[in-house]
Amino acid sequence: MSENRKKRILSGMRPTGKMHLGNYVGALENWVKLQNEYENLHLIADYHVLTTKLDTKEILTNTMEMLIDWLAVGIDPVKSPVFRQSKIKEHSELHLIFSMLVTTARLERNPTLKEQVKDLNIDSLIYGHLGYPVLQAADILIYKGEIVPVGEDQAPHVEITREIARKFNTTYDEVFPIPKTKLTNFARLPGLDRNKMSKSLGNTILISDNSEDIRKKMMKAITDPEKIRRNDPGRPEVCLVNTYHKKFNENKIEEINSGCKSGELGCVDCKKMCATAISEQLAPFTEKRQYYSDNRDEVMDILLDGEKRAAKIAKSTMEQVRKAMSLG
Amino acid sequence: MSENRKKRILSGMRPTGKMHLGNYVGALENWVKLQNEYENLHLIADYHVLTTKLDTKEILTNTMEMLIDWLAVGIDPVKSPVFRQSKIKEHSELHLIFSMLVTTARLERNPTLKEQVKDLNIDSLIYGHLGYPVLQAADILIYKGEIVPVGEDQAPHVEITREIARKFNTTYDEVFPIPKTKLTNFARLPGLDRNKMSKSLGNTILISDNSEDIRKKMMKAITDPEKIRRNDPGRPEVCLVNTYHKKFNENKIEEINSGCKSGELGCVDCKKMCATAISEQLAPFTEKRQYYSDNRDEVMDILLDGEKRAAKIAKSTMEQVRKAMSLG
Repeated sequence: MSENRKKRILSGMRPTGKMHLGNYVGALENWVKLQNEYENLHLIADYHVLTTKLDTKEILTNTMEMLIDWLAVGIDPVKSPVFRQSKIKEHSELHLIFSMLVTTARLERNPTLKEQVKDLNIDSLIYGHLGYPVLQAADILIYKGEIVPVGEDQAPHVEITREIARKFNTTYDEVFPIPKTKLTNFARLPGLDRNKMSKSLGNTILISDNSEDIRKKMMKAITDPEKIRRNDPGRPEVCLVNTYHKKFNENKIEEINSGCKSGELGCVDCKKMCATAISEQLAPFTEKRQYYSDNRDEVMDILLDGEKRAAKIAKSTMEQVRKAMSLG
Repeated sequence: MSENRKKRILSGMRPTGKMHLGNYVGALENWVKLQNEYENLHLIADYHVLTTKLDTKEILTNTMEMLIDWLAVGIDPVKSPVFRQSKIKEHSELHLIFSMLVTTARLERNPTLKEQVKDLNIDSLIYGHLGYPVLQAADILIYKGEIVPVGEDQAPHVEITREIARKFNTTYDEVFPIPKTKLTNFARLPGLDRNKMSKSLGNTILISDNSEDIRKKMMKAITDPEKIRRNDPGRPEVCLVNTYHKKFNENKIEEINSGCKSGELGCVDCKKMCATAISEQLAPFTEKRQYYSDNRDEVMDILLDGEKRAAKIAKSTMEQVRKAMSLG
């Protein structure tokens, strides 16, 4: 292969419906930036949904809403095919083979799983939930992904992918690259109540929210609890709204900080400024979002096209896998 | 569906190469008997091999040798399609979905697994080995198998299949039948050293053995350890050769028993009689075996035809599964 070949990145998300600012800052913004430098593939992890939720009634609607937001923020599906995991049968095949290359003890040591079991109060672990990183390994390696952009919490999963790739290569033949993690530059944006941003917690701003939605939501955001009256001096470093300013109002951050500290800038005005800055950044996405929202057949065509292209790569990898294993 | 519709049976084996008398008596003979009364499907479980052995170099050779024996003993591939698990992608897909419908605790309670862990001295359980019954459930249910002929040791696996089928049906929609087990009539034939018949123990008689092979092997069989000299009275009930007589020399069994007990029938003569009886029963298979052994392209065509027919059923089931789950 040529030295100038672009490295291949696999990144994906569960289909959770409309995207929020946390998704944008933590992932999508990064995907858009990377799409010229790398060969990107974007997975819609619909099977992974099942590890924690068997109800799949909304899965197709959620897939479409998520995809519309992906396209709105600038994912170019011609450069970067988008596709559903469950539509490419080779994911399941490789998952089954990989399930033979890792011990249950190794999977039980996965810290992300331990946290989920605690957070979700799981008293009886589902077999496929234990195997979450095995499916993720198949997702990455069926496309010979070389780089996986992840948040720190996902890094242990990629380590399991690397181990499985090595195990396959030494047992059969050198079919897979050993993928590298690429930690995302941005810390995740917290929700308006300072918890992790999540629709189930009602603390999100959505990419599809209009200026009025954003202003209303921002008014409820948590600030410095010790700044009570308008002219009280505030502490930007403990204020949640300030975190948003840092991201969306970078140019004005010094002015905002000094206004906050001196007490000249009240929280209401500060929040209005923040809401305006967010609205301005989301504005270029609005028109595109509206277009795709009105032309859902076109979105479905984009998906089907992505699936065709992904399937081609996946099939070729599975052929190599079968050959390496002498499966006939 | 019509009341007269034949019920569907799914039965299969790992591709272990040439078949021995234990395979014949425990399974194949039964399959041949059932093939008019039921709609049979015969699975070559090549993925299941990986649960206990990653070396797959011989898998295609073993598949062909096994299939030649299946055809030799009378499996009619027109009535009963034969196919490899790994060639029908829908097995993997359904396996992945089913992996979300069962807990690890349930799989750990599987007594067959516990025995294997003990027998094979496994200190670190492979994830896919724990999921053995999940793959088996997919194998059965992707064809909507209604009856599963098994030995007693396999019955707990089928119980897991039934639980998974019920779980899917109640969570999504009534897609699957709840399959019933059909215990095989014959106790498994022990090996010539009284252990389980197994090629790894070197205690087998193969379906492909000729009369001379059979005679030589039979001479090494274990008899009554207290019958030392030719005219010593023997105990048929503790004699391994007698077990074989019961199966292959049913008509002469009384004569043999009284000869053994009186001491008139010596072990060498008794073994010769037994070898002859076995050879006579295997004789009708020899010509057919030779034919398929000389025409391996035809065997491969039979396999490919079986796979085409199995894939058609499997695809239709997966479409119903996706619809029930609203996967789009």
